[in-house]
Amino acid sequence: MTRETYSLLENYMLSCMDDSAHDREHVYRVLYHALEIAETLDDVDYDILIAACLLHDIGRKEQFENPALCHAAVGSKKAFAFLTAHGFDKEYAEQVRRCILTHRFRENNQPQSLEAQILFDADKLDVTGAMGMARTLIYKGIVSEPLYSLLPDGTVSDGAGDDAPSFFQEYKYKLEHIYDRFYTEKGASLAEERRQAAVCFYNNLYREAASAYQDGQDMLAGLLTDS
Amino acid sequence: MTRETYSLLENYMLSCMDDSAHDREHVYRVLYHALEIAETLDDVDYDILIAACLLHDIGRKEQFENPALCHAAVGSKKAFAFLTAHGFDKEYAEQVRRCILTHRFRENNQPQSLEAQILFDADKLDVTGAMGMARTLIYKGIVSEPLYSLLPDGTVSDGAGDDAPSFFQEYKYKLEHIYDRFYTEKGASLAEERRQAAVCFYNNLYREAASAYQDGQDMLAGLLTDS
Repeated sequence: MTRETYSLLENYMLSCMDDSAHDREHVYRVLYHALEIAETLDDVDYDILIAACLLHDIGRKEQFENPALCHAAVGSKKAFAFLTAHGFDKEYAEQVRRCILTHRFRENNQPQSLEAQILFDADKLDVTGAMGMARTLIYKGIVSEPLYSLLPDGTVSDGAGDDAPSFFQEYKYKLEHIYDRFYTEKGASLAEERRQAAVCFYNNLYREAASAYQDGQDMLAGLLTDS
Repeated sequence: MTRETYSLLENYMLSCMDDSAHDREHVYRVLYHALEIAETLDDVDYDILIAACLLHDIGRKEQFENPALCHAAVGSKKAFAFLTAHGFDKEYAEQVRRCILTHRFRENNQPQSLEAQILFDADKLDVTGAMGMARTLIYKGIVSEPLYSLLPDGTVSDGAGDDAPSFFQEYKYKLEHIYDRFYTEKGASLAEERRQAAVCFYNNLYREAASAYQDGQDMLAGLLTDS
């Protein structure tokens, strides 16, 4: 890819990001992860891969404003329209479109091409390890969701079995299980290297929260009087 | 303290919290930490301590809406007004007011009474360990600040020496140093137990972010062509 094309795509990505530093940083990390994975594979088309990485989240804003929309679907259409409008050939734009459409985890819409699988893995890698925990917490702040829910007996739920959204619920339902869902060997091994950082953080946070409530509620009950 | 008084103060606290689950959970943790610390000390006035814990952050909303205001100053006035308006005696309301006024770290406004020092420690404890990291990340999401800044050479800054606000900057300037600032022995020892969880998370996050940029930028530079 020429520097000129890279700048064109990068600037379009930045214009779609609505000044969100979090989204922007994520895009660069996904691109860098993808290049690290691609290095271990033969016959990667870097023109497709770099474009797909840079543009994979350009539909985020639309989904944030209307949660019924899927950012992968919106982004893939925007990318195709942008590329064809800027003189790239249709077959190339179509390949990039398909990578973006399938980068989200969906049973019925799995990444087919090598570049699509690399993008998928690179994106998932950013939900693993300490980075996955940090990004999820930042998102919980943006959407005002709590760290944890309380069980009927007043103790802190570990998130398993919770219906209400919280950080612990997302960990138990999604973050904990992401490590088995990689297409490339390099993606899986990079994720595995990061797994312990996430497990450790969750365990520490749960222990800190749970112990405060357990001991504290007992002590409080002993201090309060009827009259 | 009677259950009736506890409910009165708790409901006033909840009415000031503007439906923020994060602030509410924090208040209960601070109360529970405070009771754990108080258990190790003689002559604690629990009526003062419980009221001060429940009401310590009732000025948060005002500070969030106008950052020139100090939530400790606003909250201490609101607490005094609420308590005296509800028939509590002035000396009691004044003790609670002073605890709240001095719960924030300020060189020239340090907690004097035993209850004020316990509140200070209990509040600081919630900025230590994995919980401190989680709360700071949630806050970065709310105020749209990034995880890290990039140095002029394009690598990830570890936060030390940064002017721009970021999660890493806050870690290096504040979170890393909070462990030496406790008044009570129990507060200091609880903080120390949690320190490693914070250090470990920061180190993992920095390593994950820094390595992605370092390797990725080199690979990208090798792939881009002039024409």
